[in-house]
Amino acid sequence: MASFRVQTPQRTYDAIVERGAIRRIPEFLPQKCGKVFAVTTKDVWNLHGSAFTQIPHNVIFFPGGESRKRISEVEAMAEQMLAAGADRSSVVVAFGGGIVNDTGGFLAAIFMRGIPVIQVPTTLLAQVDAAVGGKTGVNLVSGKNLLGSFHQPLAVLIDPDVLKTLPDREYRAGLYEIIKCGVIRDANLFRLLDEDIASVLAQEPAIVDRIIADAVRIKAEVVSNDEREGGLRRILNFGHTVGHALEAETQYSRFLHGEAVAFGMRAATVLAERVTDLKDAADIDRVIVNYGPIPSLKGISAKNLAARLVSDKKTIQGNVHFVLPTKIGEVTVVSGVDYAQVLESIEAVLGGG
Amino acid sequence: MASFRVQTPQRTYDAIVERGAIRRIPEFLPQKCGKVFAVTTKDVWNLHGSAFTQIPHNVIFFPGGESRKRISEVEAMAEQMLAAGADRSSVVVAFGGGIVNDTGGFLAAIFMRGIPVIQVPTTLLAQVDAAVGGKTGVNLVSGKNLLGSFHQPLAVLIDPDVLKTLPDREYRAGLYEIIKCGVIRDANLFRLLDEDIASVLAQEPAIVDRIIADAVRIKAEVVSNDEREGGLRRILNFGHTVGHALEAETQYSRFLHGEAVAFGMRAATVLAERVTDLKDAADIDRVIVNYGPIPSLKGISAKNLAARLVSDKKTIQGNVHFVLPTKIGEVTVVSGVDYAQVLESIEAVLGGG
Repeated sequence: MASFRVQTPQRTYDAIVERGAIRRIPEFLPQKCGKVFAVTTKDVWNLHGSAFTQIPHNVIFFPGGESRKRISEVEAMAEQMLAAGADRSSVVVAFGGGIVNDTGGFLAAIFMRGIPVIQVPTTLLAQVDAAVGGKTGVNLVSGKNLLGSFHQPLAVLIDPDVLKTLPDREYRAGLYEIIKCGVIRDANLFRLLDEDIASVLAQEPAIVDRIIADAVRIKAEVVSNDEREGGLRRILNFGHTVGHALEAETQYSRFLHGEAVAFGMRAATVLAERVTDLKDAADIDRVIVNYGPIPSLKGISAKNLAARLVSDKKTIQGNVHFVLPTKIGEVTVVSGVDYAQVLESIEAVLGGG
Repeated sequence: MASFRVQTPQRTYDAIVERGAIRRIPEFLPQKCGKVFAVTTKDVWNLHGSAFTQIPHNVIFFPGGESRKRISEVEAMAEQMLAAGADRSSVVVAFGGGIVNDTGGFLAAIFMRGIPVIQVPTTLLAQVDAAVGGKTGVNLVSGKNLLGSFHQPLAVLIDPDVLKTLPDREYRAGLYEIIKCGVIRDANLFRLLDEDIASVLAQEPAIVDRIIADAVRIKAEVVSNDEREGGLRRILNFGHTVGHALEAETQYSRFLHGEAVAFGMRAATVLAERVTDLKDAADIDRVIVNYGPIPSLKGISAKNLAARLVSDKKTIQGNVHFVLPTKIGEVTVVSGVDYAQVLESIEAVLGGG
């Protein structure tokens, strides 16, 4: 087992990476605990709901899907909780993929002005990304995750065993976020992903546990340094600037989040060659491509993607920020990048996609 | 001018009570300030919008009314902000009565996971209650303020001059919350309200400024001791347990919040005579009644009100909590009060209403 401490002004807690961790929920409930509400989807519940056998609980089914990640669904879940007798001593367990972690976490953040949440991510992407760090939220028509809260959980229980039931495409989408962790902060992790690709894709337990633990350690370190994304935390957005634009441009239906990030990392890597004199661009690009394929990029306009960047949530006073590698394991945040260079970088990847 | 420091784990800020304070907004904007969004109602804007003459700003009109205090309206305002170019450096100025303070504050709390808000309350009730202390939120069908956040403002600007345009009934509704402050924590304030009732009702500036400052001082002290209502802050709920039930029972349309609290304080005072051996019940009741009338209580069922208490937000694991005076200026929080006694207390006030 590996356990990583997350220390933020709001709360200090552990992210635990361990086979069987989903059965440890009772250990992390508060002493004076009221009703427990599992927020989940029917699919996840059918596969893993037995983790709740020993816990008196209510189940709130989230319909699932990016298009349902809206504040109206959070409101509907809150009404269901009330009807089932929820009060300020109730606890939410967000039990599912990233959408459930974000939406269930936000529900807990605003229900009666905040009740505790335990994050139990059941996809690789959620395990290494959404579930650690306290970001919660829902989408607006205007864009993704534009309403939300920072609401740190009581604990994050990450169980690699649940990944056995994950479709291959979703598993690989999660791997892209782990590649991201390597590029931004851990050259050893990056090399491991490069050299042991066969074992990683075959889901060999030892290496799966190792790369998840590495990614969670990195996320825990970064979040402990900067809960609210004023500084260091921004490095986690490597690949996300263009990635978000790609997701929005394709109505969140054509690419998984991790796949869009893979595309965004490739574009940022091309841009870094020009802006930060990155020498390792070919290595980064090769590893991302080797973990593919990502779905076809056919028909997507580079100009449309570039135009979307200005409306990204990370844009501050009109200035687009890019997280760009300087070498493998190190990145820098650059603003005021020339529009033509951004466009060329996107075109370079679209052309090769 | 009077200024009261509010110190909470989240933020330290000042609540300023001063004639002309609504024109001091620019002093409290952050140094790196993006677009300023005034969240207000058309009525308030027509009367006092000139306070923004010197500030580049966008206006978001909230339709107003308790029935519109819903998460769907917050979402609609967020979409309007996005369309007007809002980003993480934007600031909300919640400029209106309690509903605007609660809703505008909540909008700021969740927009892009939190942007700053300045609270500028324009009703007496909001000045002495909603605007100080960081509680924000909206209603569910199941009850009032059931979704929300604690989001402390950059500053609270309380301008007694704006009360000149307030209808008499709304002014008196605010006075009940000031009476509450006297009962729970300040016998001198209570006596002043008792003895100088003519000057208070005539809105003589010296006494109006004095009682608002007293109430804001008390709220600032209490909130600084207990941001999240784990302990001391609960005393602010004197009169609110039964008051909330009355508002819900009458669909939030028959009584102003302060009027419902006045009724709730009367019921709690009767209950305190029985439970905490309060000797000053007659004095408390007289002052509340003298600041009346509150609208007729005809047709309201004591049993229905008592039944609603169990679904109140303050109910924890089925236990209803009452804030009961022990003498003027001191209260205690009591749980496990006998249902029959609660019912009798409500009946006593309904009968006399």
